[in-house]
Amino acid sequence: MNTLSSQFYTTPALTALFAANHQIACMLRFESALAQAEAATGVIPMAAAQAIGEACKAEYYDPAALAYAATTAGTVAIPLVQALTSKVASEYRAYVHWGATSQDVIDTAMVLQLREALKLIENDLLQLAAICARLAETHRHTIMAGRTLMQQAIPITFGLKAARWLALIVRQIQAIRTQSNQLYLQFGGAAGTLAALGPQGWQVAERLAEELDLELPDLPWHTERDRMAQLAASLAVLAASIGKIAQDVLLLAQTEVAEVAEAPAAGKGGSSAMPHKHNPIDTLMARAAAQHALGQLPIMLQAMLQEHERAAGYWQMEWQALPELVCATGGAVARLAAALEGLIVDEQQMADNLRMTHGMLMAESLSMALATQLGRPHAQQRVQQLCEQAHASKQPLETLALADPQIMMVLAPTAIRQAFDPARYLGSTDLLIDRALASYQQLGETTQ
Amino acid sequence: MNTLSSQFYTTPALTALFAANHQIACMLRFESALAQAEAATGVIPMAAAQAIGEACKAEYYDPAALAYAATTAGTVAIPLVQALTSKVASEYRAYVHWGATSQDVIDTAMVLQLREALKLIENDLLQLAAICARLAETHRHTIMAGRTLMQQAIPITFGLKAARWLALIVRQIQAIRTQSNQLYLQFGGAAGTLAALGPQGWQVAERLAEELDLELPDLPWHTERDRMAQLAASLAVLAASIGKIAQDVLLLAQTEVAEVAEAPAAGKGGSSAMPHKHNPIDTLMARAAAQHALGQLPIMLQAMLQEHERAAGYWQMEWQALPELVCATGGAVARLAAALEGLIVDEQQMADNLRMTHGMLMAESLSMALATQLGRPHAQQRVQQLCEQAHASKQPLETLALADPQIMMVLAPTAIRQAFDPARYLGSTDLLIDRALASYQQLGETTQ
Amino acid sequence: MNTLSSQFYTTPALTALFAANHQIACMLRFESALAQAEAATGVIPMAAAQAIGEACKAEYYDPAALAYAATTAGTVAIPLVQALTSKVASEYRAYVHWGATSQDVIDTAMVLQLREALKLIENDLLQLAAICARLAETHRHTIMAGRTLMQQAIPITFGLKAARWLALIVRQIQAIRTQSNQLYLQFGGAAGTLAALGPQGWQVAERLAEELDLELPDLPWHTERDRMAQLAASLAVLAASIGKIAQDVLLLAQTEVAEVAEAPAAGKGGSSAMPHKHNPIDTLMARAAAQHALGQLPIMLQAMLQEHERAAGYWQMEWQALPELVCATGGAVARLAAALEGLIVDEQQMADNLRMTHGMLMAESLSMALATQLGRPHAQQRVQQLCEQAHASKQPLETLALADPQIMMVLAPTAIRQAFDPARYLGSTDLLIDRALASYQQLGETTQ
Amino acid sequence: MNTLSSQFYTTPALTALFAANHQIACMLRFESALAQAEAATGVIPMAAAQAIGEACKAEYYDPAALAYAATTAGTVAIPLVQALTSKVASEYRAYVHWGATSQDVIDTAMVLQLREALKLIENDLLQLAAICARLAETHRHTIMAGRTLMQQAIPITFGLKAARWLALIVRQIQAIRTQSNQLYLQFGGAAGTLAALGPQGWQVAERLAEELDLELPDLPWHTERDRMAQLAASLAVLAASIGKIAQDVLLLAQTEVAEVAEAPAAGKGGSSAMPHKHNPIDTLMARAAAQHALGQLPIMLQAMLQEHERAAGYWQMEWQALPELVCATGGAVARLAAALEGLIVDEQQMADNLRMTHGMLMAESLSMALATQLGRPHAQQRVQQLCEQAHASKQPLETLALADPQIMMVLAPTAIRQAFDPARYLGSTDLLIDRALASYQQLGETTQ
Repeated sequence: MNTLSSQFYTTPALTALFAANHQIACMLRFESALAQAEAATGVIPMAAAQAIGEACKAEYYDPAALAYAATTAGTVAIPLVQALTSKVASEYRAYVHWGATSQDVIDTAMVLQLREALKLIENDLLQLAAICARLAETHRHTIMAGRTLMQQAIPITFGLKAARWLALIVRQIQAIRTQSNQLYLQFGGAAGTLAALGPQGWQVAERLAEELDLELPDLPWHTERDRMAQLAASLAVLAASIGKIAQDVLLLAQTEVAEVAEAPAAGKGGSSAMPHKHNPIDTLMARAAAQHALGQLPIMLQAMLQEHERAAGYWQMEWQALPELVCATGGAVARLAAALEGLIVDEQQMADNLRMTHGMLMAESLSMALATQLGRPHAQQRVQQLCEQAHASKQPLETLALADPQIMMVLAPTAIRQAFDPARYLGSTDLLIDRALASYQQLGETTQ
Repeated sequence: MNTLSSQFYTTPALTALFAANHQIACMLRFESALAQAEAATGVIPMAAAQAIGEACKAEYYDPAALAYAATTAGTVAIPLVQALTSKVASEYRAYVHWGATSQDVIDTAMVLQLREALKLIENDLLQLAAICARLAETHRHTIMAGRTLMQQAIPITFGLKAARWLALIVRQIQAIRTQSNQLYLQFGGAAGTLAALGPQGWQVAERLAEELDLELPDLPWHTERDRMAQLAASLAVLAASIGKIAQDVLLLAQTEVAEVAEAPAAGKGGSSAMPHKHNPIDTLMARAAAQHALGQLPIMLQAMLQEHERAAGYWQMEWQALPELVCATGGAVARLAAALEGLIVDEQQMADNLRMTHGMLMAESLSMALATQLGRPHAQQRVQQLCEQAHASKQPLETLALADPQIMMVLAPTAIRQAFDPARYLGSTDLLIDRALASYQQLGETTQ
Repeated sequence: MNTLSSQFYTTPALTALFAANHQIACMLRFESALAQAEAATGVIPMAAAQAIGEACKAEYYDPAALAYAATTAGTVAIPLVQALTSKVASEYRAYVHWGATSQDVIDTAMVLQLREALKLIENDLLQLAAICARLAETHRHTIMAGRTLMQQAIPITFGLKAARWLALIVRQIQAIRTQSNQLYLQFGGAAGTLAALGPQGWQVAERLAEELDLELPDLPWHTERDRMAQLAASLAVLAASIGKIAQDVLLLAQTEVAEVAEAPAAGKGGSSAMPHKHNPIDTLMARAAAQHALGQLPIMLQAMLQEHERAAGYWQMEWQALPELVCATGGAVARLAAALEGLIVDEQQMADNLRMTHGMLMAESLSMALATQLGRPHAQQRVQQLCEQAHASKQPLETLALADPQIMMVLAPTAIRQAFDPARYLGSTDLLIDRALASYQQLGETTQ
Repeated sequence: MNTLSSQFYTTPALTALFAANHQIACMLRFESALAQAEAATGVIPMAAAQAIGEACKAEYYDPAALAYAATTAGTVAIPLVQALTSKVASEYRAYVHWGATSQDVIDTAMVLQLREALKLIENDLLQLAAICARLAETHRHTIMAGRTLMQQAIPITFGLKAARWLALIVRQIQAIRTQSNQLYLQFGGAAGTLAALGPQGWQVAERLAEELDLELPDLPWHTERDRMAQLAASLAVLAASIGKIAQDVLLLAQTEVAEVAEAPAAGKGGSSAMPHKHNPIDTLMARAAAQHALGQLPIMLQAMLQEHERAAGYWQMEWQALPELVCATGGAVARLAAALEGLIVDEQQMADNLRMTHGMLMAESLSMALATQLGRPHAQQRVQQLCEQAHASKQPLETLALADPQIMMVLAPTAIRQAFDPARYLGSTDLLIDRALASYQQLGETTQ
């Protein structure tokens, strides 16, 4: 599907990875490496491997013609192997695709494409993590309202919010790296026995895995697709992580909250009707892309129900769902990075919003200050009554607390005033920011 | 996403409907009709409408450039309206896109695309129904094993199976027609009030609906997307219907069942490894396409959770999911029609399979014949014992029944033999085939 | 699954409908009606039908024992029919479940349960519609900010927002009624041929449909589950509709927006930590329930891929998904009705929020006022510049407009001031509210 | 939802883990451990911790009453903490739930429940693996048809099929163990800052994690739910793995294939209509349960989009979906183990089916034997022609090959006959079985 909108959800680099010509290039890489591996193990003549290798250049093949033939053949491997064979000198044609089956070349090419895609996504994630780390540092002390159930709750800092985003992204980077280290060769022949290679099948498999720098699996996995599904699931969890952060940003960017805004840019975020609009385009597209990615995961899980030694439809349904999942996930990452890169953080507005409930936000703080003396249930009950009074009378909670005989009996005015200071009610905020930054640092170290 | 495989799941005609240039054409059709409607209601000068109409030719616009600008703008409407404006004589530029918003043009263009797509799908469904009707007629008396829980159960006819497929398809055609009659104009302006048109907004809406031959909705539906979701759901039910039929065909085409086969064709259904294979390619691709379609529905349902007067991401996520759902559903229909068109039905094999359990398939028949005399529970129990005996001794159930004193006491040998004649145990089969054909006939009549 | 939380998402009445004892009651109702229909058509003796009918009392049967036996048998029909048979006088036992199969009784019982459930849900929807209609009337002139992409856009009224909710609910009521009118008997015998009833099968089916007051289907639908899937889809669209409204309420109830609040109640909406919290519990539970419902739909669609004449697992997977979908959808409706029933609408806050952007909200209004004179593109551009100036200088847009020579040249000060009056920029708001109320009225009329 | 069918999909032990009383027990365990940890770090008096600990006995609390109160409160934590407080001596009441919030106790209780559930599932998986290992060993040399696209392809052994199931299960056990080692404490207080505990918050967290034997997370994860989603995803991949194996069994158990059958048992697999049926009940229920589990995963992924510091609905929607996912996955494992435990494998039927295509299955074998001499393309083409001839004439392929001059020219009759011996065309089958068994052995070793 090549709609106008399809590029909204992804990046040009990812799109290119799954385009017809690159898939063909990866399939040819498999065929070439197969010939090499078979020559190295004495299964076919070295000259044949060389001849085949020379014919394995993507530019020799016409993607449109192959796609057309594939629609009837049911797999692009058949017309590609035919075309490749026709480009090899006749004495070596026998050795093209020797002992392999369509699924071997299609699955392994997909794995090669995924390897490149995961690398691109990881890079964008690292950039996103760097931005979040910067926000966490810069806004370590920028106090804002913490919000639960979409109501102001108690104070946090914007640095902590960014640190939580950071920790979430760091964990996703680790997950993507785990997946990148679990990319396996598929090589099993017609029904997973490597029968056509006689006793040498697994030796060829070992060599082929080396040639392609892929992991050698325990067994061929033609119809046991747990690894593909798990890769898809990890990407979906990443996509949903991006969705969570994007949603936070959208909520903070609402006109009435106005604590953050996307950096303006020419031609960005306007409206075809309203001249005043600056819409958070990158963020909302990140959210849309994340949802598009999530939508593809169930297809990949259904696709696990593959019959016997090759599935009739359930393998083929991976071919579109997985590229879409990968591309939309990567698109979500890139869009969110673009949104956060120049994010405008309005510290004044954060401070103003913090004060808008006239101290209600500090109710737990006051309650805890009273709890040791009054007992937590009693303290909570008393503060609840004051809150209702404050709400009804529109007076600040602090004023009411300072006038409450029961409270005055157990807390000095200074202590009451301190209980209303957001900066004094941040608990482990600083330490938690440090922990997030530390896990980000460790990430960098393990890369090297 | 334009992978090699993407065309496996759909048809060229459907792909073309959702391609960039056709989306632009539909958007221009909206802009042109809007100008017409506004001129007709005296909102803008007639000359302006004419000037705008002349500029609304898709070939004047560059899809790639618009797509590029749209990625930043967040919607293709903004750059398209700009480009359109620049093509209109300066005195009339004021009136381009007058009173409308991006969502009006994008949603209505999508509705126009959907109208064409539904028509294409309906046509393919009618062809599929015709094929099923032919199979139902032709094989009205072709007895085969009915199978429950993947075990042979009692006899049916292949005509009845085809009649059930037919009835299923007829109901889907009705559902698609219902959807085709519920295609509504979206026109609400910036926030659904048509404020920019002052008191004339709804009058323009009425006229615009007429111009585009669309239904006038009760209200603008910018963030109330139940109709879009329902359309998507109807298509998903259709896709799953195709999936059910495709699965039946695949099961019947198994080597060990071999009751049907796809017609062979050059370059179709082979294997890159196994020379003897004739794989049911069209059927399995129908199944894969159906699953791809099903995967998009949850996106459309999530997309209903749109905020306030225009959604931040949840509207935008419809843009890829809905075209994919439509195209994959249509692809599934077309592939299944191709598979059934030349379906080879092996009546002999059906008859052979019917006999393979040595009469077990007639156990219910025998049991019912005995039931009036012995009571259903007792009859069932006796037959069950005979079945176990038959299974253990590999003797035909009929032989055992004819030798069983208890059975002989209540049933004459002729009656026993009749109880083992599949043709005498088809119940309402004929009548049900008639009912399916009648509902298919009525369908044709309502079209005219 | 009987977790503590399971009741959060549904209502006691709906839970009761799908509980074991009520399912048994519905299955017995089928068996009793079947005997009646067969007696009426002369298939079994009238005395047998009477004896069977007397044994069909739910209180005679032990749900736990049946459930236990069913786990092994694979269907509750087998142990229930056995138990029922044992309760019938021996001379009539033969006629219990005569000619039917497990699927007939289980499917039809489900349909009977669904009929009751749809009625309950419709009633709650009618209550919800009444509340929305009241809000639409009461707040017809309560001006508030319309919001697009989570940014203030142009003015609307709260009455219009409620009218859009109303229209959405009205359409869902129509959809539920459509579904309620499409509840079909399932009756096909072992493999859908009614073979065990000889030539009288369909006659029994007709009579049985009458007895149960269900529709007679075109054909038995044992493995053609499009109607079940479509019912599920309609409920999912309803659930997502509830989700959309709940989300609007949650966004409006945010501390910083504060335009609506759920009515407080004892023990509701507090926090175990924060004494000041009044959380919108009903609304958020409506949203959670809606999402739980949405999650079940894909199961129902996958369940359509049923093999041959009875599915091996794909039929059985409907048994939990469909009740959950129904119950969670109904729960979402009931919870949202509870939330909206006493909804506190803060008109003053709506007015205050409207002013918070210092006139930006009226940018389109000003732009349209200028458009006829300056042309829409030029007008929009000029207003955009003023908006940026207003944003930078924190001056009201109106002040800047009144000081702008270009604007002053084409608009009189009064006209400019009028362009900044939200009440004058509501377009078709009133008419659209009327249209929503009219469709609600018609709904009532069609019921009678 | 407590339907009759709900227990079909799970086991009593898993159901019990998520029942109300056990959830309460786990929540009390958190409250007790919290008091201990706070006493140990000097936050509250040791006597208070002891008093609280004594009141934390599940039998003191009424699940129904708590559930009722929770429906209004929006969380069961509030009424439970109230009830607990009332059971503690008044001087210590202050210290109940000190510094914690509802989410801390609910999330951590869920983690404790999950730990037990994963253990149960792992045990059932180990049993399933043992069965598969036995099948792989026993049927190492039992030759059967390998099937691709539901067509017979080339020979494999049933041992290899079982070995592939085994390797799949072994990988799932590893995945479940990985998840079991990543069960983290949730402890963050009202908004994730642990503010109510002042500077001691994280110290308490560390001690609390120790008390509960849970991992200490990098940060509180109240609204960063990637770990929960990943756990859910791993279970879904497991469920789909079970689905794949169950589907293979169902296909092999078809009447026409008849290579395996579930062991018969009293009251199992019968039909309410057909006396001869032995339905594969456990296998089909495993498949239904797996699909029910898959249906819940998207809910868990959507649930990741949680707002700010506590979600309004998206947290709450995990509460039903996750238990259902866990229980249905575990149910699928247990049902499949029951099905495979006594699986009847019909080696004779496997051998018969292998011969049913009269040698077609050996087409690739013949083709490879010819390939070195004729070249692979030419060899494949010649064999394809012979296959078509064999199909048309119903003669064995071997007979035709032995009569083909072109073939006879390059292959001796013995070589041709050998090419038709399935036992000589098994390639790496034996080695792959060994690899699967080895990975199973290693699993056992890592447990100790």
